[in-house]
Amino acid sequence: MQADPAAPRPTIAVVHMREGALTEERETTIERVRELRERGGTTWVAVAGLGDVEVLRQLGEVFSLHRLALEDVAHTHQRPKLEDYPEHQFLVLRVLDPTHPGETEQLCMFLGDDFVLTFEEHRGDCFDPVRHRLRDPSSRIRRNGVDYLAYALMDAIVDAYFPAMEALGDRLEAVEESVVAGTAPAAVVRELHEARRELLVARRALWPLREVMAGLMRADSARVTTETRVYLRDVYDHVVQLLDLLENYRELGASLTELHLASASIRLNEVMKVLTMIATIFIPLTFVVGVYGMNFKHMPELTWRYGYPAVLLVMLGIALGMLMWFRRRGWL
Amino acid sequence: MQADPAAPRPTIAVVHMREGALTEERETTIERVRELRERGGTTWVAVAGLGDVEVLRQLGEVFSLHRLALEDVAHTHQRPKLEDYPEHQFLVLRVLDPTHPGETEQLCMFLGDDFVLTFEEHRGDCFDPVRHRLRDPSSRIRRNGVDYLAYALMDAIVDAYFPAMEALGDRLEAVEESVVAGTAPAAVVRELHEARRELLVARRALWPLREVMAGLMRADSARVTTETRVYLRDVYDHVVQLLDLLENYRELGASLTELHLASASIRLNEVMKVLTMIATIFIPLTFVVGVYGMNFKHMPELTWRYGYPAVLLVMLGIALGMLMWFRRRGWL
Amino acid sequence: MQADPAAPRPTIAVVHMREGALTEERETTIERVRELRERGGTTWVAVAGLGDVEVLRQLGEVFSLHRLALEDVAHTHQRPKLEDYPEHQFLVLRVLDPTHPGETEQLCMFLGDDFVLTFEEHRGDCFDPVRHRLRDPSSRIRRNGVDYLAYALMDAIVDAYFPAMEALGDRLEAVEESVVAGTAPAAVVRELHEARRELLVARRALWPLREVMAGLMRADSARVTTETRVYLRDVYDHVVQLLDLLENYRELGASLTELHLASASIRLNEVMKVLTMIATIFIPLTFVVGVYGMNFKHMPELTWRYGYPAVLLVMLGIALGMLMWFRRRGWL
Amino acid sequence: MQADPAAPRPTIAVVHMREGALTEERETTIERVRELRERGGTTWVAVAGLGDVEVLRQLGEVFSLHRLALEDVAHTHQRPKLEDYPEHQFLVLRVLDPTHPGETEQLCMFLGDDFVLTFEEHRGDCFDPVRHRLRDPSSRIRRNGVDYLAYALMDAIVDAYFPAMEALGDRLEAVEESVVAGTAPAAVVRELHEARRELLVARRALWPLREVMAGLMRADSARVTTETRVYLRDVYDHVVQLLDLLENYRELGASLTELHLASASIRLNEVMKVLTMIATIFIPLTFVVGVYGMNFKHMPELTWRYGYPAVLLVMLGIALGMLMWFRRRGWL
Amino acid sequence: MQADPAAPRPTIAVVHMREGALTEERETTIERVRELRERGGTTWVAVAGLGDVEVLRQLGEVFSLHRLALEDVAHTHQRPKLEDYPEHQFLVLRVLDPTHPGETEQLCMFLGDDFVLTFEEHRGDCFDPVRHRLRDPSSRIRRNGVDYLAYALMDAIVDAYFPAMEALGDRLEAVEESVVAGTAPAAVVRELHEARRELLVARRALWPLREVMAGLMRADSARVTTETRVYLRDVYDHVVQLLDLLENYRELGASLTELHLASASIRLNEVMKVLTMIATIFIPLTFVVGVYGMNFKHMPELTWRYGYPAVLLVMLGIALGMLMWFRRRGWL
Repeated sequence: MQADPAAPRPTIAVVHMREGALTEERETTIERVRELRERGGTTWVAVAGLGDVEVLRQLGEVFSLHRLALEDVAHTHQRPKLEDYPEHQFLVLRVLDPTHPGETEQLCMFLGDDFVLTFEEHRGDCFDPVRHRLRDPSSRIRRNGVDYLAYALMDAIVDAYFPAMEALGDRLEAVEESVVAGTAPAAVVRELHEARRELLVARRALWPLREVMAGLMRADSARVTTETRVYLRDVYDHVVQLLDLLENYRELGASLTELHLASASIRLNEVMKVLTMIATIFIPLTFVVGVYGMNFKHMPELTWRYGYPAVLLVMLGIALGMLMWFRRRGWL
Repeated sequence: MQADPAAPRPTIAVVHMREGALTEERETTIERVRELRERGGTTWVAVAGLGDVEVLRQLGEVFSLHRLALEDVAHTHQRPKLEDYPEHQFLVLRVLDPTHPGETEQLCMFLGDDFVLTFEEHRGDCFDPVRHRLRDPSSRIRRNGVDYLAYALMDAIVDAYFPAMEALGDRLEAVEESVVAGTAPAAVVRELHEARRELLVARRALWPLREVMAGLMRADSARVTTETRVYLRDVYDHVVQLLDLLENYRELGASLTELHLASASIRLNEVMKVLTMIATIFIPLTFVVGVYGMNFKHMPELTWRYGYPAVLLVMLGIALGMLMWFRRRGWL
Repeated sequence: MQADPAAPRPTIAVVHMREGALTEERETTIERVRELRERGGTTWVAVAGLGDVEVLRQLGEVFSLHRLALEDVAHTHQRPKLEDYPEHQFLVLRVLDPTHPGETEQLCMFLGDDFVLTFEEHRGDCFDPVRHRLRDPSSRIRRNGVDYLAYALMDAIVDAYFPAMEALGDRLEAVEESVVAGTAPAAVVRELHEARRELLVARRALWPLREVMAGLMRADSARVTTETRVYLRDVYDHVVQLLDLLENYRELGASLTELHLASASIRLNEVMKVLTMIATIFIPLTFVVGVYGMNFKHMPELTWRYGYPAVLLVMLGIALGMLMWFRRRGWL
Repeated sequence: MQADPAAPRPTIAVVHMREGALTEERETTIERVRELRERGGTTWVAVAGLGDVEVLRQLGEVFSLHRLALEDVAHTHQRPKLEDYPEHQFLVLRVLDPTHPGETEQLCMFLGDDFVLTFEEHRGDCFDPVRHRLRDPSSRIRRNGVDYLAYALMDAIVDAYFPAMEALGDRLEAVEESVVAGTAPAAVVRELHEARRELLVARRALWPLREVMAGLMRADSARVTTETRVYLRDVYDHVVQLLDLLENYRELGASLTELHLASASIRLNEVMKVLTMIATIFIPLTFVVGVYGMNFKHMPELTWRYGYPAVLLVMLGIALGMLMWFRRRGWL
Repeated sequence: MQADPAAPRPTIAVVHMREGALTEERETTIERVRELRERGGTTWVAVAGLGDVEVLRQLGEVFSLHRLALEDVAHTHQRPKLEDYPEHQFLVLRVLDPTHPGETEQLCMFLGDDFVLTFEEHRGDCFDPVRHRLRDPSSRIRRNGVDYLAYALMDAIVDAYFPAMEALGDRLEAVEESVVAGTAPAAVVRELHEARRELLVARRALWPLREVMAGLMRADSARVTTETRVYLRDVYDHVVQLLDLLENYRELGASLTELHLASASIRLNEVMKVLTMIATIFIPLTFVVGVYGMNFKHMPELTWRYGYPAVLLVMLGIALGMLMWFRRRGWL
């Protein structure tokens, strides 16, 4: 079990609920967590930063977490999954990284009989809406059990994808407008490539998340009540909707890339055709004037009275004839 | 639960059937709805416009609708789905938006033991055929139960896709004719892109709708009679047929895009080849006339008696030789 | 229930078998059909032409056909399907339209306990082999029941696809030969597009037909005997084989399109390269001769004794140098 | 039941094993086959050539073969399949045709309680290894039953694909080397197309063969012992491995086609760019020399003492300026 | 059963554990293996090098290995699979070949009640971490049974893929940077092709490995304890994660190839457009100067006082006019 030395030192936040009373501490110690848990009630421990293996080890001891699950917490490139262990459910999720757009960070969650543990790579704020609702004594989250709390946390994670997806959608629509109008710069290909990368990253996070939510809904566990399952179905629906959006954007992006390349190629071909035709008309004419620029002693035409205008007329005739021929073949 | 402030204020229409008597009111109040329902019989409430959250809340109270389902009504970007709640089935469907071609609006339906509720984003008229049939006292829709009414509404929704799909098919066939004839303008790529977008939108609406209809046919619920299930199979068939059409148009569109690009590129290449050959023949000739345009004192050819016609003959020979060489290599 | 007004007036043909006796009437009336059926035995009614809704209605009454199935008969753009109704099995099939190559027409079949009904859009002749076999008193089709008759009809429908597929295969092979030989004209792209369209049409008819045959083989119905199921498996195999052929032709067509475009582009590129090189060699030479065509008073070279041959030699050197450079860079 | 008149006259070979005694006859008659079979023991009849329907009919009588299966033997374009009949299992397989590379011929097999019948289109030799092993009295094939004999025959058929696949792989690797080295001739596209065709043919034969082998392994039949099933799994593995190879070659072929086209296009573009630049530098220079080739009476520069060298310098400057501009824009 | 004569002579290493005691011998004989096994406890025999068929045969006798499995060991182009035999499970795996990057070698494993046998093609070192852990008396691998040992070996094999995948990812990212920056050389297409090949090789090894791990987890065998199954799930997860990475790299590679070709083509088109425009402007001008270079006796303009400057002005006008026309049509 190794930890990324570059990761920041962990901070431990705890929320403890018992008989309507709420204790919230933003930076606390493992000792305090152990003490709160022993009082009974529901405990939510949120660890931000994975820089200290010792913290993981001690929390694992307090809550009897499985060795393999703890190892997964420390390795931050997992794909989302749900694993049943006798003492707890273990979930790996991925959230969009607010500081590195287009990347995700790992978020692990342990769901036990009376506790929820969350581990984030960096100090994030995607749980702030949940904390806010917890402070309202009349809120549903205070009355329902630990499974509802876990639902609320997952809901917050999934909802955080929507603004990012909408921003991506707006960018794609702006690109579409410029591509359809034919004013897209060459860099638009690069932008579409970046959009595609972001879609790939989001899909890697969301596709297995669908399985995770489905697994949790179907879980053969007393820990998740029937009522909470209805709410989990709602989160599941959101994930499916996000995947639907992703798929849509992917197809739109592919179609735009094709359209842009096709338009660019057709437009360039138009340009080349016109330019080549100009060149083609003048090349025979230039040959003709070259002929009468030769310095042969004996060139009867040169001494004709109307040689010069005659040649000009002949050249005009050649030019018009070529234009007509181009038009007849449909090149103009 | 938020509502789109830009959405129009809702109007509530109600149809109430009891022992053969029909009450139809195009604009009514929630109080009146509550009163009609308490009389027994079958009630269909059609809400058009989602601009007022209060209306949703009150209707939810009258018919005991589930909180999560009501939230889905207010969020108008859902994908079609079917959800079983104890008190009712909840369906999200999507209809083609008559005012914005190529977009869909959300249509939600609650199917209870004695009521059907429909929520549309805007004042639509896709249910007019159903209203018309309801006014005929001898029609099947008056005799059968609430599930048959729900079937009739869904049938009307699905049937409304056919004219739009046929219009799209006609456009694609027009495009095909021009592409095959080689007279398609450059903008045809753009038109094919738009057709592809419309197909995407329709597919997003219809693909999950298939699942919804299949789910309703198989639903383990006493609310849907065996007879109605036969009718639902018919709607299911229509959805499958629409998807089949979509798939067909998608393939046709892809094939046309390819054909157009291939034809355009082949035609342009023909043009470029001919033009380049003209240029290529004249370039050596222009060089030759340039040679005899040099002003060297000592150029014996210039003083020859037949220098000029000889050079003309030589150039004719060069031109013919190049043409023959082109032909031999199959470039002509 | 509407009927296509452009469809021809229906003709009704009937075949009635009872205790070895065969009655065959090519144009008969519904009254006669009713009379024959009441005698007992097996009745096959073949309706060609859907121009009269009344005929459908009356036949529906005689044989107790389901309303929804009759509606499907009248709508001629159904995809193949199999539907179980209490009184009969209902099949929608599609046959290749002999008068419009590359299109299919709808063929509906009702299979009851003692009758088979077939409805064709136009007067077709794909059942003629079956009629022929029926006239032979010793044939299996006379001895076996109504399900075997239905099998024989379906077999005839599926077998009618083979010649069309073989013709398409022959056309593709001719295209392949010309493409591989490099002699394919530009119109070959169009021909491949048409082949692709025909494949699409055939696939739309055959893909769901496979499901229909599989459904009939597995059907939980006493109407289909175990022996006939073996024969249906044979029809199923033919459908799978046709789909296999289609898939093969589709891949071949795609590969040929690619090969043709690639060959055309490579060949054109060869042409352009050679031509451009000719131009490129002469352009510097033309510049040189232009230099000595200038009319400056003071150009010492012009008066040199061997200026002219020297310049010719220099130009020869330039030309050879460029050719060597081209060759060294592998462009020649 | 028709037979291909072009097919060669059949020869009948028989192998008969009983209590350790082996009778092998390379060309025999149906009468002799009937006689051998009546002695008991295991009989393997190998028919090569399908030119005589009568042979099929008589063998069908001797071994009670099903009419539909016999028809399938006579139609030589079947795809591989396995069919259970009460009296025997019937298999259609396809072997690579040694005389027509890139094509397959049909091989049918009947597996009864005490006999194996094989029907080949032409006189083939793919069973020679099996015959060889049969002649060794201590070999497993002599001790085990008729199902093991059938396994040995199928194993020989599948093994015969490996050398062909390896040859194809070698050809593709040679193509790859030349494509990566950039020395591939234009004909390489054609060769890749042919490889693709051969892969298609092999896949058509092998893909359904996988199903056949799986079906035989799972067959609910006492004819195949548990021990032989283990051996069949081995054949199944070989088929899967062949399909894996095919898929690999298909991807490799596609990648090579792309790489070749991309390389060719990039190389050509390089050529065109350099050539066009040469032309572009000389075109303005040619214009300049043209200016001083004009015959105006009053052109002061022409009489300047250093007019000529000045113009040469100016042109040198233009050429260098353009080169620098090209370089600055990254075109060089 | 043949062996590759080019394969090195096998070395046999044995590890024997019994009641906490560990015997490890790096090069031993089959006799010694037989002796150790007869003592009871757990035996792991690791054979490296397949050059001697006799070794296989004798080991097969000592551990009662199945003939077909032994044949598979000798044929080194198997795809990963899991086969249940009565006496043992047999696994074929593939490891990355350290000496030939981009290729895999076969690794076979037999898992019996009290033994693990591994066969490698060459002397590999991917099991060194396991040997290291075995030497620590307190390690889990010493306490758990033979199935845990097998897990540890498989884990080592799968983990060895990660560094290779990461190296590939780094190379792709470097390629991406250069492609996006537009500085990628032409050879980048070749590099992307090589990456694609390596991905193909890895996928061929990993895709069936997933099935193998899933099969082992579900295996209906007392040989694998419930605890070890949890660990196997971990290996399974790693394989899925590797496949996810592969898929990602595949999509990235495809996107990069497209982007590179599109950028190259767009950039080249830009170049060609500018160059062609330069040529196009000068071609009419060159024609004009050619006209006044003609040697006609009677060309009035030549004698005009301001003929020369007038022509220069006219040419300037033509050049500016063409530039303006280009700009108006959006070509500049």
